Amino acid sequence: MSFVLSLRKAWEGSQSMLCVGLDPDPAKIPASLGEPDDPDTVLRFCRGIVDATAPFACTFKPQIAYFAAARAEGQLEALIHHVHRAHPGIPVVLDGKRGDIGATAERYAIEAFERYQADAVTVNPYMGFDSIEPWLAGRDRGVFLLCRTSNPGGSDLQALDVGGERLFERVARLAAGHWNTNGQLGLVVGATFPEELARVRALVGEMPLLVPGIGAQGGDIDATVAAGAGRATPGMLVNSSRAILYASKGPDWAEAAARVARETRDALRRAAAR
Amino acid sequence: MSFVLSLRKAWEGSQSMLCVGLDPDPAKIPASLGEPDDPDTVLRFCRGIVDATAPFACTFKPQIAYFAAARAEGQLEALIHHVHRAHPGIPVVLDGKRGDIGATAERYAIEAFERYQADAVTVNPYMGFDSIEPWLAGRDRGVFLLCRTSNPGGSDLQALDVGGERLFERVARLAAGHWNTNGQLGLVVGATFPEELARVRALVGEMPLLVPGIGAQGGDIDATVAAGAGRATPGMLVNSSRAILYASKGPDWAEAAARVARETRDALRRAAAR
Repeated sequence: MSFVLSLRKAWEGSQSMLCVGLDPDPAKIPASLGEPDDPDTVLRFCRGIVDATAPFACTFKPQIAYFAAARAEGQLEALIHHVHRAHPGIPVVLDGKRGDIGATAERYAIEAFERYQADAVTVNPYMGFDSIEPWLAGRDRGVFLLCRTSNPGGSDLQALDVGGERLFERVARLAAGHWNTNGQLGLVVGATFPEELARVRALVGEMPLLVPGIGAQGGDIDATVAAGAGRATPGMLVNSSRAILYASKGPDWAEAAARVARETRDALRRAAAR
Repeated sequence: MSFVLSLRKAWEGSQSMLCVGLDPDPAKIPASLGEPDDPDTVLRFCRGIVDATAPFACTFKPQIAYFAAARAEGQLEALIHHVHRAHPGIPVVLDGKRGDIGATAERYAIEAFERYQADAVTVNPYMGFDSIEPWLAGRDRGVFLLCRTSNPGGSDLQALDVGGERLFERVARLAAGHWNTNGQLGLVVGATFPEELARVRALVGEMPLLVPGIGAQGGDIDATVAAGAGRATPGMLVNSSRAILYASKGPDWAEAAARVARETRDALRRAAAR
């Protein structure tokens, strides 16, 4: 099954656009779970978040940096395996923003798709199409290219004018055009710039957009959905990490995460119904 | 000691511009070393390459994708530890081309600088300055930003005109300007485009350039050195990976790697003396 089809099924099954980001920060993991630097604490926390929020999520997005800094690669494998087994039908987007060429890109694809069994990845487009192509060998996997990121410095290069359009618009057009050899591409577009999200949506049709920047980063849900939703599909994975993961540091951390995930899903639903 | 000073000492001590890239491809590791998918085989091979080529190298550059695909993170830690202990004065550039923001970038910096004890890293600039800043906290470490990469697709974005200059020239100017808050930045510029390498050198003064693309990728050594060398310093880490690592698949693999490394160092020296 193609990744886009998996994603459509996930949207339908969950009736949700919420992507729960798994960024386990040792400084914020509830102390009751154990030593924050212990890789097994990281796994315990993330499994708890996954099980508590799965009813409200269309996808999970582990951010590999948090696992790598904690020497928790084995735990990341176990976590993704757990999602696939306990919550089938919820795809996992492994957020690593890799970008390299040839044999090296093939190794990264093995890391993400074979070792971690991710359903999709994030990839940085700066090195061009031959840095993207090796990720497209597994036809059932998805690739979200960085397009317009939600951080202030995102404008440093992405907003530069390149022949009458901005660099991120060029990336969007390439991704919707000849780079998308088999319909596996999506784009990462931040929620903090709704006009630019709308511009990308206009350029790419129904292409899936992974949208960080709501919640702790301040993006407005109504404006984000109005700007970024598809016509035939929800079209977006709207990511929230910190606001859900660290809703409470007390013994109710899992219940609090579930509550914020449900509220966020509901706010996204209401926005889509407007 | 600042990374730039470490590098100057390494250039002086080695009288070499050669950076030996450590890209352990399981399909190419000599069979006599053991099961190619065994992480300890990867370590055995890389240690052998390091010990054989250290007399001819100013730096080593492990490419993290090869270790990650092989579940060899522990072996990568051991390898870098070995370089520091057995070959002091040869800095290690960890090639991961990461790029992310805020707390995530801090995690990547912990991965590279604390876990792996790398002396420098490669970073992708697409997300802008606030994706680079977290790497600059450890004042003794270096950061090589991707500028002009040696692959054909490198032109897709990097060669686009942005207000009268190409995108990679903008990256070079930013890196030599206000992004370089503490003199820790270098740039990655491929050897396959000598005119562009010369253009970057003209923009950045003595900034260290990490230059892949000679050897298997076909870049010309004389043209590369003429285009990219500094005035006061050698200025370049000229990387060769495959041509050295896989010089022989027979029992003489280490001797063959040493021979090609010495020949490459000598060719770089001759080019610099012209």
